Amino acid sequence: MEKIKVGMLGIGNIGKGTYQALAMNQKKIADTTGLDIEIVKILNRHPERDRGIDIPKEKYTADIDDILNDPEISIVVELIGGIEPATTFMARALENGKSVVTANKAAIAANGRMLAQLAQEHHVLLRFEAAVAGGIPILTSLTTALLSNEFRSVHGILNGTTNYILTQMEENGKDYADILKDAQAKGFAEADPTADVEGIDAANKLSILISLVFGLGVGPDQIPTQGITHVGADDIAFAKDSGYKIKLLASAREENGEVCASVEPTLVPVSHPLANVRNEFNAVFITGNAVDNLMFYGRGAGPLPTGSAVMGDVIGVARKWEKDSAYDIVPQLRYDADLKFIGEGSNKYYVRMTAEDIPGVMGKITTILGAHGISIETALQRPGKNFGDAPSSAAPIVPLIFIFANVEKTIVSDALDDLLANHCVKSIETVMRVEE
Amino acid sequence: MEKIKVGMLGIGNIGKGTYQALAMNQKKIADTTGLDIEIVKILNRHPERDRGIDIPKEKYTADIDDILNDPEISIVVELIGGIEPATTFMARALENGKSVVTANKAAIAANGRMLAQLAQEHHVLLRFEAAVAGGIPILTSLTTALLSNEFRSVHGILNGTTNYILTQMEENGKDYADILKDAQAKGFAEADPTADVEGIDAANKLSILISLVFGLGVGPDQIPTQGITHVGADDIAFAKDSGYKIKLLASAREENGEVCASVEPTLVPVSHPLANVRNEFNAVFITGNAVDNLMFYGRGAGPLPTGSAVMGDVIGVARKWEKDSAYDIVPQLRYDADLKFIGEGSNKYYVRMTAEDIPGVMGKITTILGAHGISIETALQRPGKNFGDAPSSAAPIVPLIFIFANVEKTIVSDALDDLLANHCVKSIETVMRVEE
Repeated sequence: MEKIKVGMLGIGNIGKGTYQALAMNQKKIADTTGLDIEIVKILNRHPERDRGIDIPKEKYTADIDDILNDPEISIVVELIGGIEPATTFMARALENGKSVVTANKAAIAANGRMLAQLAQEHHVLLRFEAAVAGGIPILTSLTTALLSNEFRSVHGILNGTTNYILTQMEENGKDYADILKDAQAKGFAEADPTADVEGIDAANKLSILISLVFGLGVGPDQIPTQGITHVGADDIAFAKDSGYKIKLLASAREENGEVCASVEPTLVPVSHPLANVRNEFNAVFITGNAVDNLMFYGRGAGPLPTGSAVMGDVIGVARKWEKDSAYDIVPQLRYDADLKFIGEGSNKYYVRMTAEDIPGVMGKITTILGAHGISIETALQRPGKNFGDAPSSAAPIVPLIFIFANVEKTIVSDALDDLLANHCVKSIETVMRVEE
Repeated sequence: MEKIKVGMLGIGNIGKGTYQALAMNQKKIADTTGLDIEIVKILNRHPERDRGIDIPKEKYTADIDDILNDPEISIVVELIGGIEPATTFMARALENGKSVVTANKAAIAANGRMLAQLAQEHHVLLRFEAAVAGGIPILTSLTTALLSNEFRSVHGILNGTTNYILTQMEENGKDYADILKDAQAKGFAEADPTADVEGIDAANKLSILISLVFGLGVGPDQIPTQGITHVGADDIAFAKDSGYKIKLLASAREENGEVCASVEPTLVPVSHPLANVRNEFNAVFITGNAVDNLMFYGRGAGPLPTGSAVMGDVIGVARKWEKDSAYDIVPQLRYDADLKFIGEGSNKYYVRMTAEDIPGVMGKITTILGAHGISIETALQRPGKNFGDAPSSAAPIVPLIFIFANVEKTIVSDALDDLLANHCVKSIETVMRVEE
């Protein structure tokens, strides 16, 4: 039986999950692949800390060179997270002739191109299935069984924290803040939830998907990104009444050589399979010109599901599937397609605003929208807060909801600025994409 | 660029879809893999027939030996379907040192073990992603990215025809016969729908999945199989009222070293992702000990989606990923696990029956069920057809619906026979598994 020695960088939640996934399934892996895989060294700056997992102390080292310079280690698994020092460690491992497996979306989104080139130069492999949608084998599928497709679009629920929050808001009618606290208590949200709730995590993952699906290099900072903090109970209620659910959708699509992409709260029709992805689950929905629509659904985070993906990559590297092929040595990341990135593109938009309930206000608003070339598909005026029994002399404030026909986001932004500048509206509460 | 010459057996719908999937995406495949794949010969017994596709006539041959003896052809794609002569042709191709790609579930379910052994002996590959769930990359995922899991269960909607019929019955309230005609007109059902509606097609696919998921050889004839022809409007209505949808589910699960499996109409809770798989779509839901729950959703049939999977396998073979590894040469089929197949196992069951509405009938029925050790979870008596204003002197006939707690199917069958023998009930209308 072939012995494969692995060095692991980091022993946080994902590190522990990876160690456990291997420990649980070592016999199965050996039986089906003939590989005897062992994690022989683990970079751990605090070996004295109790991590609640049974790992022999002698595997721990605080010195990265113990791993990078060990000639017996052929695969380095990077699970530190964050861009640095993870990128430097991975680069050094590749330069030392070791294949690298990582779950690090931020480092791959930022430095994937450089790392893939290093892997190619040194005839080793770079794998990162766990970086996008956790345990879901989407990257493997895109780069093997689905290779005989040109893809038209990819839509993903790529962040479990925000999907949990939106699901709970919809199903239990609770407020964003309460649910965030609950998610933090359950371990579905970090103490600092910024990267999740502002869409940054999803944008990193979408950047990687765009490279795999379209062969285009689009950094996460180039992707128009909006989080869920402005999604209100009124939006959820309107969406429900109108046959939609609100999802933080990471989307990219190609049309006539142009690729557009965004991460933002999006109204998804209830009949769409993505609408039924609840709580902390993730899903990726892709459309290819041969395979048509496909959806992959599963756990996008968590120690064991992520560990499953990491170990799948380790086995893949160890089986040396790709050593024969120049393409596989620069594995899946491509940046050379003859396509143009055009930002967010044209979409339907949902806008919720408030205005004073004075005669002619709707006419003024629609006139200004029309002047910007915006066609209105749906307009809904709800009763105002002090409507009917208003004690004050001020005009009541009414919520207004619109759905705009296909239009560019910049036009929407300009028109909304214009409405505010002309005091036609009191506030713009939410702007969301609508997916059909 | 490496030239890969492919011989194709058969030019029916799947053959045409495969040819088209390659034609549409030849440039993309070349750009991403460096492979120039060409289908150079096609076995076609009726070359004079117009097939509505632009294929140069000189590619056609009516002589199988033209393909099997061509030293330039390295991959044979078998798309004839049926067990013979497909199996013989595949065996001869493997013996001649050619790798084989097939979409043929019946031949793989019947003869996969023999064909895999031939592939191993001759150091070539056998691939059949398209044989299970069409375009969905479930086999590739199970045998690559998900290898670091022991699986607990697999549940699939593996037949598009029956899922289309059940969806239409539920959503449009139409009768089975009307919808079958409609499905035949739309090309979702064959002129002779027996293999689909009786569950035979799904049982072939489940047999292949059981080998991949559990490493166990269970022939389709060993899998307890029941079709959808007995599912009535009353069943659909009861299921809907009770929070279930009825799906033809192909299921296998492992517990304490025992594997049970069946193909049968099953009540699935509406909140389960499989319940939302509508019309002709397929889905496979698997649970692994590391990755937890995953679902793959997509088109399980159709020329282009199936062609996508076939071409994915051709690319996989052409890239020679697996040539280095003894395991990959016997690709994925395993029959050596230390597990025991026990048939259908214990499940919850839904039973719809009719009885004469005479005093004490419910008591008699439940007494007999109790004597067989069956616990009743739900009992529902509906008003009879001539209840209230019955003109005839006969007692009205009432429908009775039960859900039994976990019990073996043989016990259910014995108890129902007993009820009929004792004239407690007039008819047993439907027996279905209930999934929680």
